[in-house]
Amino acid sequence: MSLSELSVIARYFTGIGAGRDDVRLGVGDDGAILRVPPGRELAVTVDTLVEGVHFLADVDPETLGHKSLAVSLSDLAAMGADPAWATLALTLPSPDEVWLQAFAQGFDGLARAHGVNLVGGDTTRGPLSITVQAQGLLPAGQGLRRSGASPGDLIYATGTLGDAALALLAQQGLYVGSGRLDGLVSRLERPMPRVAEGLALRGLATAAIDISDGLGADLGHICEASGAGAWIDMTRLPCSEAVRAYIAETGDWALPLSGGDDYELCFTLAPERQGELEALAQRLGTPFTWIGLVEAQPGVRCQSEDGSLGSPPAGYDHFGRHD
Amino acid sequence: MSLSELSVIARYFTGIGAGRDDVRLGVGDDGAILRVPPGRELAVTVDTLVEGVHFLADVDPETLGHKSLAVSLSDLAAMGADPAWATLALTLPSPDEVWLQAFAQGFDGLARAHGVNLVGGDTTRGPLSITVQAQGLLPAGQGLRRSGASPGDLIYATGTLGDAALALLAQQGLYVGSGRLDGLVSRLERPMPRVAEGLALRGLATAAIDISDGLGADLGHICEASGAGAWIDMTRLPCSEAVRAYIAETGDWALPLSGGDDYELCFTLAPERQGELEALAQRLGTPFTWIGLVEAQPGVRCQSEDGSLGSPPAGYDHFGRHD
Repeated sequence: MSLSELSVIARYFTGIGAGRDDVRLGVGDDGAILRVPPGRELAVTVDTLVEGVHFLADVDPETLGHKSLAVSLSDLAAMGADPAWATLALTLPSPDEVWLQAFAQGFDGLARAHGVNLVGGDTTRGPLSITVQAQGLLPAGQGLRRSGASPGDLIYATGTLGDAALALLAQQGLYVGSGRLDGLVSRLERPMPRVAEGLALRGLATAAIDISDGLGADLGHICEASGAGAWIDMTRLPCSEAVRAYIAETGDWALPLSGGDDYELCFTLAPERQGELEALAQRLGTPFTWIGLVEAQPGVRCQSEDGSLGSPPAGYDHFGRHD
Repeated sequence: MSLSELSVIARYFTGIGAGRDDVRLGVGDDGAILRVPPGRELAVTVDTLVEGVHFLADVDPETLGHKSLAVSLSDLAAMGADPAWATLALTLPSPDEVWLQAFAQGFDGLARAHGVNLVGGDTTRGPLSITVQAQGLLPAGQGLRRSGASPGDLIYATGTLGDAALALLAQQGLYVGSGRLDGLVSRLERPMPRVAEGLALRGLATAAIDISDGLGADLGHICEASGAGAWIDMTRLPCSEAVRAYIAETGDWALPLSGGDDYELCFTLAPERQGELEALAQRLGTPFTWIGLVEAQPGVRCQSEDGSLGSPPAGYDHFGRHD
């Protein structure tokens, strides 16, 4: 007998993630029943990963399980939300038990690390794709948005930029440079969402977004939502040694600006609060790098080493670059 | 310039559904921010429809938009939840503007009818599939579950069973009977979730489920969750004239028991509350048909016209029947 839809869900996706008292009813009914504490608002985000677009067919299922949840937790981080619950809609060509077990394990590991319970899902037959909806909790009225940046605010990025894009180039055989590429594959395949940073930036940052489509494109979203523009100092972009070596060798300075899948945060800050941010960087051990300024003039302007100003290259666009 | 991911979402999926004061932040940020009223719990359900599995490539996009939301609202109905918010993850081979507009219109019509606001989504490139997550509100502790049925409870179904399955047989050219098939296509393509019935059954039904995989399979889920079994009187199954004609012509008595996509509700009721249910049927104008009894012995037993007992045929199973 072939594995039934129900047993796929029951066997691999029951008990995934952290246990939570606020899950009144989890996997196995028509839906889940969840309790939002008084004074909290609900943050909701959804992301789909499609084989051949977001990942290759031969990707390790354990890392895919991790990444499927990571991209949604990264969105919650950008809102300053405390991750709580997730649902998983999994479309599979066939129920491969080894694959499912590894996928569930990767999902479970990251879910437990962030206190997330998998509360429901749907398993269907079809070309491999994964849709995760993650839900988090926010003190009422305190969610970080894209729309709060004002001219004069400082622009920051967490961590380093372009590592995942460089790892992808290397995987595709398009780059075999002298830079150290070993550590980069995990940046592409197992991104760590900046959840602690997002929580700490609540009430401190004026606007925030996670960098999934490339810094230029995502900062552009902050600018549009805020009715403002931005100036970026390219020489300040935080890059790993490998990305610096790549830029030096190829002259492709745009990688940290347009490379997708970074899952770092880009945020804006009123200048008078720089001291608080420095204290936060100390406490979390996270590099926050000042990279530019919010300006009144719309658009994103990138200043190169020679002082010239240009537009950022296009970011990741499913119906643009990839058509 | 090709249509970008963001503009697809912005152009077609902003302002979809009913306006709601409890949506603090909707489509267009990293996620939505929603307010759950005090004393309410959150019901969450997710469903995926895949081209070639759940619908054919040439399906009318407006009806597909309707159905994508209907299947999730049907789950909320089975929980007795009041629909509030939805997210839409849409994977498309290419952004066809005519298709998107029609799809959005179908989604919007049903969303408005049930007071649902589309609060977020993700648009990706790939083989056509649609994942909708719907969220509803419940008075704390009052959600309908699958697990509350007790031996002696009466089993009911709303509406009629097997219409959608018969419409599918007719569409596939597998049935050209004398029954009137005209009205059946809408049962398949534009199911109307039993939201009002689900709300009214809260505090009255002991267990409930929506019939998406066929009555036999879905009643089986109630039995498993409740640690009980069921006896069904096949002669009592509520059928349309067309389904009655089909059974008479083909001898295939199993259609109303195993046909999927009905999106009716199956529920159980303590016998002493039959009077209340009759009053409810009057008020809503919905047929509630008594079809059997909950028994202590596990499993579902179907009694035919000649008095013989059998097991229900298998229900819809993505990794079973369709492999």
